[in-house]
Amino acid sequence: MDLLLLLLDLVGTFVFAISGATVGVRQRLDLFGVLVLSFAAANSGGIVRDVLIGATPPAALADWRYLAVSCLAGLLTFYRHALVERLRNPVQMFDAAGLGLFAVAGASKALAFGLGPVAATLLGMLSGIGGGIARDILVARTPVVLQAELYAVAALAGAAVVVLAHQLRHPHVPALVIGALLCFGLRYMAIRHGWHLPVARPRD
Amino acid sequence: MDLLLLLLDLVGTFVFAISGATVGVRQRLDLFGVLVLSFAAANSGGIVRDVLIGATPPAALADWRYLAVSCLAGLLTFYRHALVERLRNPVQMFDAAGLGLFAVAGASKALAFGLGPVAATLLGMLSGIGGGIARDILVARTPVVLQAELYAVAALAGAAVVVLAHQLRHPHVPALVIGALLCFGLRYMAIRHGWHLPVARPRD
Amino acid sequence: MDLLLLLLDLVGTFVFAISGATVGVRQRLDLFGVLVLSFAAANSGGIVRDVLIGATPPAALADWRYLAVSCLAGLLTFYRHALVERLRNPVQMFDAAGLGLFAVAGASKALAFGLGPVAATLLGMLSGIGGGIARDILVARTPVVLQAELYAVAALAGAAVVVLAHQLRHPHVPALVIGALLCFGLRYMAIRHGWHLPVARPRD
Repeated sequence: MDLLLLLLDLVGTFVFAISGATVGVRQRLDLFGVLVLSFAAANSGGIVRDVLIGATPPAALADWRYLAVSCLAGLLTFYRHALVERLRNPVQMFDAAGLGLFAVAGASKALAFGLGPVAATLLGMLSGIGGGIARDILVARTPVVLQAELYAVAALAGAAVVVLAHQLRHPHVPALVIGALLCFGLRYMAIRHGWHLPVARPRD
Repeated sequence: MDLLLLLLDLVGTFVFAISGATVGVRQRLDLFGVLVLSFAAANSGGIVRDVLIGATPPAALADWRYLAVSCLAGLLTFYRHALVERLRNPVQMFDAAGLGLFAVAGASKALAFGLGPVAATLLGMLSGIGGGIARDILVARTPVVLQAELYAVAALAGAAVVVLAHQLRHPHVPALVIGALLCFGLRYMAIRHGWHLPVARPRD
Repeated sequence: MDLLLLLLDLVGTFVFAISGATVGVRQRLDLFGVLVLSFAAANSGGIVRDVLIGATPPAALADWRYLAVSCLAGLLTFYRHALVERLRNPVQMFDAAGLGLFAVAGASKALAFGLGPVAATLLGMLSGIGGGIARDILVARTPVVLQAELYAVAALAGAAVVVLAHQLRHPHVPALVIGALLCFGLRYMAIRHGWHLPVARPRD
């Protein structure tokens, strides 16, 4: 089970790193800049979560595999950019899967460190969306996470399922699965059918 | 007394959250993006302060009331935007009051965690201005805090009063009141009379 | 020896602070904004490193000398901007020296706090480049560190020397010297001869 979780975590890291590297390539950064964006997109959410719950040093720094997977994704994107662009739709699916996994894993870790339900839900969401925010701030644009269809809301819902099950003393593993599936499903429907939240209409 | 402090803290959170939500609405973010900006503007200063002094998890995450008040302010701004824009002047006054309160409360907390006078003054200032910086970075613009009339300087002065009183073993509560009033007064005069610091004139 | 290290550390702080203040002056910030950019450019890398390894409060906040040196550099740049612009080439040399020093000192501190080799190398690099990233994010532009000639790579190489020597149980001080010189040399050659990494060529 732990091996499965680690594998899923690294798959999530890989697909998020590809999203970061793709942005870096489009901004014409050099190879190193692309690798930094890969690492930042894949690991910032988890690093910020670990700092906020006092779990220093963060797992993404202490375990070399996160760096290795991030760099692998960055190199692949840098040298095979055309291939990655052609794959965009499958990447979006992987990204939605990664989002679900990071959200439930983040909420889980926060609960394990003794945080309350509201904080754990927020930290689960942050684990999912933090990487995308860091990636976009590094290239000086408003994070698409704050604008895209139900992206953060999907992460919030997934994290909330885990926290709710914990509050009600329901078993943990089914909650993880249901939370991740709910997040994935919401995000999938939002991409597929353009579901979105109301947008502000400021007066001119 | 503690109840009064909590109430003032939540009022400060509320007015800072309105400033974040207003920026989000003007950037035409969706509802969720507006709530994220509300929360970030109201709580980033305190969260960064708590991380820097090792007080994890930060109070703004551990206590659900900060989230509730931030979301309330965000929802109000989202659905009653015209009203909030009409209120802008009173909001500026509340914002100046919030700045003073956050600055003295931040310096206080840093002293309570054993930091030295320079660090406590800096952390008080950061508690006051951190939210505005986070808000502006999230929408990819240079923080107005770094440009506005005596904004950060007012926070610095308020925090310095608290730290100075602590160094001289003067009583704490009057120092909080005087520090907050000094910060508010400086900021008010700066808004009212356009007081500002010298601006750099780079050679062309 | 410790006195020498402190002196070098403060020299590094000074030159990094000048780079931050120069950006602030060019952006026509007011005096306070310029001082904030000075402090952020000189100390953000070290502060983030200290937070990530759990060494709170960070040294740059706990020791007033870092603030004093940063403000001195900021004031000098603000009031003698023409002089600093004329000095730009020597500043670039000092900056390269500061980069080398911060990289080896950062890796050293991470090892002293028990981090593994991969994490210590990353944290050494981050100590060197973090200030430049914070400086550029604060004025809403893509960090030049991610684009400039071998900047981050030089910091990475310097940090790697220190970590490698530690792994092989070689003496510490020669490794610090060699690491800092390697970083400085790489950066110098990159500036001098335009050495750079391959840049991504996205398809149009």
